[in-house]
Amino acid sequence: MSSDGRAYPLDAWRITEGRFDRSMASRNETIFTLANGNLGMRGNFEEGFCTVSRGTYINGFYEETPIVYGETAFGYAKNRQVMLNVADAKVMRLTVDGEPFDLGSGTILSYERTLDLSRGELLREVRWSSPAGRRVAVRIRRIVSLARRDTAAIDYEVAADGNDLQIEIVSAIEGSVENQAGRDDPRIGTRSNSRMLTTIFREAGGLDGLLVQKTPVTHMALACAMTHSYAHSSGAGPQVRTVSRAADAGESASVTVRTEIASGDSFRLTKFISYRTTKELAEEGLVDGARGSVEEARAVGFTVLEEEQVREVRRFWASADVEVGGDEAIQQGVRYNLFSLLQSAGRDGRTSVAAKGLSGEGYEGHYFWDTEIYVLPFFIYTQPEIARSLLRYRLGILDKARARAAEMGQKGALFPWRTIGGEECSPYYPAGSAQYHINADIVFALQKYLNASADRGLLAEGGAEMIFETARLWADLGDWLPERGDARPKPSGAAGGLRFYINEVTGPDEYTALVNNNVYTNLMAELNLRAAAALADRLRREEPAELDRVARRILLADEEIEEWRRAADRMYIPYDRERGIAAQDDAFLHRARWDFEGVPRDKYPLLLHFHPLVIYRYQVLKQPDVVLAQVLRGDRFTTAEKKRNFDYYDPLTTGDSSLSPCIQSVAASELGYVEKAYEYFMRTARMDLDDVNGNVADGFHCAAMAGTWISLIYGFAGMRDYNGRLSFDPRLPKAWSHLRFALRYRGAAISVSATKDEVVYDLDPGEANGAAAVTIEHRGRELLLEAGRPARVSLLPLLECVIFDLDGVITDTAELHFRAWKRIADELAIPFDRSFNERLKGVGRLESLELILEHGGKALPHPEKLAVAERKNGYYRELVATITPENLLPGILELLTALEASGIRRAIASVSHNVWEVVERLQISRVIDLIVDPSRIAKGKPDPEVFMTAADALRIPPENCAGIEDAQAGIDAIAAARMFSVGIGSELTGADWTLPDTASLSLELLLERFASHRTGRG
Amino acid sequence: MSSDGRAYPLDAWRITEGRFDRSMASRNETIFTLANGNLGMRGNFEEGFCTVSRGTYINGFYEETPIVYGETAFGYAKNRQVMLNVADAKVMRLTVDGEPFDLGSGTILSYERTLDLSRGELLREVRWSSPAGRRVAVRIRRIVSLARRDTAAIDYEVAADGNDLQIEIVSAIEGSVENQAGRDDPRIGTRSNSRMLTTIFREAGGLDGLLVQKTPVTHMALACAMTHSYAHSSGAGPQVRTVSRAADAGESASVTVRTEIASGDSFRLTKFISYRTTKELAEEGLVDGARGSVEEARAVGFTVLEEEQVREVRRFWASADVEVGGDEAIQQGVRYNLFSLLQSAGRDGRTSVAAKGLSGEGYEGHYFWDTEIYVLPFFIYTQPEIARSLLRYRLGILDKARARAAEMGQKGALFPWRTIGGEECSPYYPAGSAQYHINADIVFALQKYLNASADRGLLAEGGAEMIFETARLWADLGDWLPERGDARPKPSGAAGGLRFYINEVTGPDEYTALVNNNVYTNLMAELNLRAAAALADRLRREEPAELDRVARRILLADEEIEEWRRAADRMYIPYDRERGIAAQDDAFLHRARWDFEGVPRDKYPLLLHFHPLVIYRYQVLKQPDVVLAQVLRGDRFTTAEKKRNFDYYDPLTTGDSSLSPCIQSVAASELGYVEKAYEYFMRTARMDLDDVNGNVADGFHCAAMAGTWISLIYGFAGMRDYNGRLSFDPRLPKAWSHLRFALRYRGAAISVSATKDEVVYDLDPGEANGAAAVTIEHRGRELLLEAGRPARVSLLPLLECVIFDLDGVITDTAELHFRAWKRIADELAIPFDRSFNERLKGVGRLESLELILEHGGKALPHPEKLAVAERKNGYYRELVATITPENLLPGILELLTALEASGIRRAIASVSHNVWEVVERLQISRVIDLIVDPSRIAKGKPDPEVFMTAADALRIPPENCAGIEDAQAGIDAIAAARMFSVGIGSELTGADWTLPDTASLSLELLLERFASHRTGRG
Repeated sequence: MSSDGRAYPLDAWRITEGRFDRSMASRNETIFTLANGNLGMRGNFEEGFCTVSRGTYINGFYEETPIVYGETAFGYAKNRQVMLNVADAKVMRLTVDGEPFDLGSGTILSYERTLDLSRGELLREVRWSSPAGRRVAVRIRRIVSLARRDTAAIDYEVAADGNDLQIEIVSAIEGSVENQAGRDDPRIGTRSNSRMLTTIFREAGGLDGLLVQKTPVTHMALACAMTHSYAHSSGAGPQVRTVSRAADAGESASVTVRTEIASGDSFRLTKFISYRTTKELAEEGLVDGARGSVEEARAVGFTVLEEEQVREVRRFWASADVEVGGDEAIQQGVRYNLFSLLQSAGRDGRTSVAAKGLSGEGYEGHYFWDTEIYVLPFFIYTQPEIARSLLRYRLGILDKARARAAEMGQKGALFPWRTIGGEECSPYYPAGSAQYHINADIVFALQKYLNASADRGLLAEGGAEMIFETARLWADLGDWLPERGDARPKPSGAAGGLRFYINEVTGPDEYTALVNNNVYTNLMAELNLRAAAALADRLRREEPAELDRVARRILLADEEIEEWRRAADRMYIPYDRERGIAAQDDAFLHRARWDFEGVPRDKYPLLLHFHPLVIYRYQVLKQPDVVLAQVLRGDRFTTAEKKRNFDYYDPLTTGDSSLSPCIQSVAASELGYVEKAYEYFMRTARMDLDDVNGNVADGFHCAAMAGTWISLIYGFAGMRDYNGRLSFDPRLPKAWSHLRFALRYRGAAISVSATKDEVVYDLDPGEANGAAAVTIEHRGRELLLEAGRPARVSLLPLLECVIFDLDGVITDTAELHFRAWKRIADELAIPFDRSFNERLKGVGRLESLELILEHGGKALPHPEKLAVAERKNGYYRELVATITPENLLPGILELLTALEASGIRRAIASVSHNVWEVVERLQISRVIDLIVDPSRIAKGKPDPEVFMTAADALRIPPENCAGIEDAQAGIDAIAAARMFSVGIGSELTGADWTLPDTASLSLELLLERFASHRTGRG
Repeated sequence: MSSDGRAYPLDAWRITEGRFDRSMASRNETIFTLANGNLGMRGNFEEGFCTVSRGTYINGFYEETPIVYGETAFGYAKNRQVMLNVADAKVMRLTVDGEPFDLGSGTILSYERTLDLSRGELLREVRWSSPAGRRVAVRIRRIVSLARRDTAAIDYEVAADGNDLQIEIVSAIEGSVENQAGRDDPRIGTRSNSRMLTTIFREAGGLDGLLVQKTPVTHMALACAMTHSYAHSSGAGPQVRTVSRAADAGESASVTVRTEIASGDSFRLTKFISYRTTKELAEEGLVDGARGSVEEARAVGFTVLEEEQVREVRRFWASADVEVGGDEAIQQGVRYNLFSLLQSAGRDGRTSVAAKGLSGEGYEGHYFWDTEIYVLPFFIYTQPEIARSLLRYRLGILDKARARAAEMGQKGALFPWRTIGGEECSPYYPAGSAQYHINADIVFALQKYLNASADRGLLAEGGAEMIFETARLWADLGDWLPERGDARPKPSGAAGGLRFYINEVTGPDEYTALVNNNVYTNLMAELNLRAAAALADRLRREEPAELDRVARRILLADEEIEEWRRAADRMYIPYDRERGIAAQDDAFLHRARWDFEGVPRDKYPLLLHFHPLVIYRYQVLKQPDVVLAQVLRGDRFTTAEKKRNFDYYDPLTTGDSSLSPCIQSVAASELGYVEKAYEYFMRTARMDLDDVNGNVADGFHCAAMAGTWISLIYGFAGMRDYNGRLSFDPRLPKAWSHLRFALRYRGAAISVSATKDEVVYDLDPGEANGAAAVTIEHRGRELLLEAGRPARVSLLPLLECVIFDLDGVITDTAELHFRAWKRIADELAIPFDRSFNERLKGVGRLESLELILEHGGKALPHPEKLAVAERKNGYYRELVATITPENLLPGILELLTALEASGIRRAIASVSHNVWEVVERLQISRVIDLIVDPSRIAKGKPDPEVFMTAADALRIPPENCAGIEDAQAGIDAIAAARMFSVGIGSELTGADWTLPDTASLSLELLLERFASHRTGRG
């Protein structure tokens, strides 16, 4: 570790291991992985010393073995698929004057290993003295070529350091590798004892070697070839003797090179490696294919391979880089993570992104929803070609998804929760196959791609079929059942007795399984159904022949399309009216809260310490489903709901999943919880570099790596892409000087450069047919971006809106209420005076009546109470009818007029049911932009909803709003809404500015106080 | 098969296979099983021909192997336990003049195999001609001794039939048997490939042989010994030569006997067998133990063993027999099932009843709740010694249950869902470990035993600890959460905001898993908690030192006891107010109904054709939890609720479980669904003899066998034992002439003999300190039974109660309602006349107002509607205040008076809220026994609840009630309540007797019509 407690010194472009530390070996094997989306090599030392898990992986190259169940049942996933650890071609064992070069012996004089993120190269430089005192300097460069998918190369240079040396290098391909045995951790995979890959052919000759391996069940085969070139620094140099050998032991092919190096001279052996598989070639072509590749690589030489690599890496950073000013740790984490994503993503249309990329065997190399929900946004907006390829993988397994749906008794297509080849491989269905949401996740990503790229080719390639078949699954899976009391208020679509329910599924949260109406699942299914109906509509309008073709292929009836729309319109979204929050599912809020206080930290992750029945029984989350839903489908929630949801669910989230912190960070950013957003972001940005979860040895956390980009772009830059419109709302953490990135959008590039004070948006139409102008939104305002005309927007605080309470701020209706209650009390023969009236302030109508009855020692049956309360309202409304502009409180009209003149919006946020009539009678309607009345909110003050609803409706960020209130609950509500609060009255606490009365209010003072609060004390 | 399509001819005491049928071989291997609760032998032929599964089992003798999971998790059951198929000592291979005796060759001249239920013996008699034409008569008797737990004997007699014969009999113990491999059917068990039992020693000499086997993991060992005696019918006879041999091949010990038999003579070889195990002896004592047993058996001889057997069997039938007159098939099924239970039940205090007894390997020989809920009632009431022993098995594994609770993160003890040795062995926790109800099932059975036996010894032996520790589990498992709207009305206990909920469990119904508040689980947990609190109270009062001892042992605090009571009092029971039924769990009624119409019969059992996710998603049942709950805890439901529950849930029950029909039969009996009760009973009574489920080859269905007794005693005899009081309500199916049985109760015997016309209860105090008098109930009436004074009660129909509707039968309040509504309509300025008033008949108050408003084209806000409806009621009550006895309808007072004089009860069942006042003002209170008003019911007419509630309250069976009504809904309600219905008015349909007006009513006519209806047309 370096002195600041970090494993690697902070450097924007380099990950450097500055000294050899055996205890870091397994971790560094992952960290120094090189891969190109097809071929991955863990960072094992070529010489073989200090190896924990040597790994070489080919994306999508797997074997199948039957899953053994304790007790099986119909429809269970039949086979396990395992991405194979294939023949190891990294091997180059150096012997120096008869002593093996091994850092476990002798003396290390200097040591440095660096992954260069700007070059895509791994470099190791060691000076070492052998046990017998022979000194050698070794410099090894390794490339897994981004330009040539099957090719890797290792340049191994040995210098004699003050002594002449006899050296030997055995360069081999070793086939006797195996996948690791599993441990009792479901995140890794279960032990498989049988050998899954056998070496069926090996050959060596001259500087060449070759090995063929094959699987018994999937019949996949690969040829791994190597060849070499060498040179002495001294030109011709001493003689080089080579021996090649194909051995049964170790199933290896090797080339042994022996030579002498004079002191001060050096010798370079360059190894060219190729892996070709039956995924791309016929089996009989493998050997020639692999030989051809290594020959070609040797022909161009290592330097050219290096140049190609740098070119590819530069191209990547040109569109993918995110610059974070002022935080080196973040900057390094961001670059490392983005580069690792590039390394991990398949790009041949037949592979995806394994949960751990090509860096390890965790999760058996399976593809999950991680690709679509976490990884794809990054590629869609920076490398659309890779995004397209990843989506084509899903199109390729559509037939298998159809077969799975049929097996599960459903129509349409059901994508597997985890798979490599396309078949469902979940050995534990409650947290696997039950996650039907995978279907909608895929369509969600496809929709996002189609919108950002404007490329419709994928639709004709099977995309349309996929959208229709997944929608079919939902329409068949769900059930039409009677409306229940606990639905979200105001469902969209026509009224009626039936709603669409989706029962017995598991959402992303794996600490809650087999539930009814998981909010994430239902919202995503709604999107899937709506997307299918909308696509059918568009095709019918624009490409009727294409719709016809697809409909004939999949026997699609018009009624189905209508059913999709109806199911989407009437989708049931569980909601808790009392708390005003989304319910994670029908039952979640009826469970007890997990004992967070009583369960010690070492019992986390819970899944390793508690039986699933225990975990499922409580309100405790692995993944925060509601928060994820409000990030992905933010347009289906009000800001007030989002705040309440986050406030409720975030404390229930354990941090046991690497997929959560980025989502929590985005949600926190949106709600202005900047510190929290930063804290969660830190965990995702440096998850692997800092080994936050302690298991980086098992491989990358690809979803968390992509989550870094999501946190930056969706979180701190506030980017959203709902309904095909890009919008931004940048909010930088205090420590950052700036945030810069670019997005590919409809062929063009939009660059965004934000500081705390301003943001600049710039459009580059790119080379080809990129859009020349794009309309985006910044904080709710439209901006037309045109090439060559950067849009510069201030982020400084600015008072844009003032939101007034009604009673006690604009007018004093308290007197009218007193008189109405007095009349009722007289009728009931209950004594009533102004002092008792004080007890009714801020109390609802029915509750007020109950207080009065209690005061008078009387009781009424409930219906009569309702009638009396109604009568009181009648009396009050009679009095309201007497209101005139005279009743405006002092200074208010002047303030409203001044605000209007300055272009500052004016809203009233009131929980009074008579607000409209009062405003009308006060004759101030023409200076009020917006009235939020109780019918528009679920929770009254001190919940901030009434103020947040006003800001939402006017599309003004809360930081640029002020609220004026005369009641404590109102001040608290304004504060919770993160607005500038103005308190009228001397007994209020916590207001940003307190005044004795409305007469003291003026625009000038308000602007002054607002500015000093926002810049100075804020 | 015999000519009537049955496999075995109907015979009250014998199961006979009349001809040799190879296709019946595997089925008969189970059917002709002999066992004694410790040692079981399938009905394989001694000679080994035609064997499908040869099986020999010792109760509780098992091996463990690790359970392999597709994906494992914390707390999963670790090991599988398998009851072992042990060394086969049945083997006796006969050779006749060099030809093997094999019914697959030669000619069968006659064949009969009989299981004699009155003797406990299996007899086979065969006359056979060999392929070479040698004729032989063979007679084989087999006994597994009920008097000697380790001993079996086979008497093998060979007669030369018209020719001299050279015979050889190889009598062996063969150790090379194995458990069957599993199939893909979770009801059987999963394949285990390793050999679980190895033969470690074999020995033979003279007429003796011996074999020792041992398991590698559980280290259980057994010694199986044999010895022989022989005799010629001709006295001394020809020479007998014997050879004994211990062979590695087949891991066998054998004795070969050769002799000659002259034509007409016969030769008997009698084999004595013993199995001794380390369950009872130290390993070093096994060999001597087994040898000693067989020597002893040989010393007494086969005839004495037979006599002992007959004595034991007679003793069993003396207390266990149930005589069903008039139905031979039932009688045979009943006897076979009860005898099989005797054979299956462990009685050493360390074993229980495997799901398939000792007859096969289905369910791996595991013990489930089947023992406590299904099997124990039979033993408790007929063989209390065996019941006691079965309960002691649970006490013996209490420590393991404590350890399991701790592993599951809970306090107290948690019994395993399936086990042999006491450890949880469920490989699929959603339908295994999640069935926490097993805890309460055990306590339920213990309570039942304690009450019926009055034996308290078990409490001191650990029973008290068990009741406390299981209660502890419930108290810790459940959660205190706020009251919800969907609770059952009128919870017992104090009012308050919190209820006790039990989340994330599975009830008995395995087609619904991992639910919240399963009604069966919660009701049984309530019982468990209450039993624990009550026990603590009793001990504190009566045996404070004992309470102290237990409390110190398990660190029991007084507060815990209070908590148990509170949890029981406030237990949440999910209820559907709209339907008026118990909800199986929180979510069940929010699922869609299974598509019973669309899914073909060959897709059942569903578990073999649909993924669990599909099954769990729907309202479809394997076990009917609600119906089971209302059978076991019938005192917690009203009869009306039971009827609605049964009507709702019975059609959802698939018949996929052998545990359901008996329960459905009992519930149907109670509700008077006699045909249905009989139909379900038939399936349970002859399940194995008729191979109803097609899998009898895998072994007995012990729970269904015991269900036969439950159906008879709890169903047709209507026995209940709630709260320690025996009650009866016999209702015989049409086909039966009588039903006779006896119950052991507190040391005495109560015999019950019922015909359709009468029932006789008789008490026999027995030999020892049996109760000399017992109070029982017959149809709600107490009966004091005294020794020597049989109580004889008529079952003929008898009018015991008349239940009157109020409006239109006793008085005409319709006019008053008209006048009140008229006044309201006038106030609202809406036209209203008598013709419109007709539309309001039978319509509730608020709905009536809505009709009037609609009629007048007016609308009112909801609270005002409530107020107006209240006002109407005020007007109506003013009018009610004017009612006098003059308003009684003609003939009513006379009828009420005549009924009173005849001792026939009089009730009013009205949905009018003013019924009490009206009755008061009519001055008929003194002749009315009971008024049921709307506050006491959940559903109005035509639901029968209001009438059933009246009958329930008066404790009169509905058949003995008449109801009088003037509205169609009322007539329908009376019919649904199965009462005699009297209709007043000419437009009514479906009434049993219709009159134009009340003036035509008279007691004389009513009695006449009732009698003719019940006896003649009924």
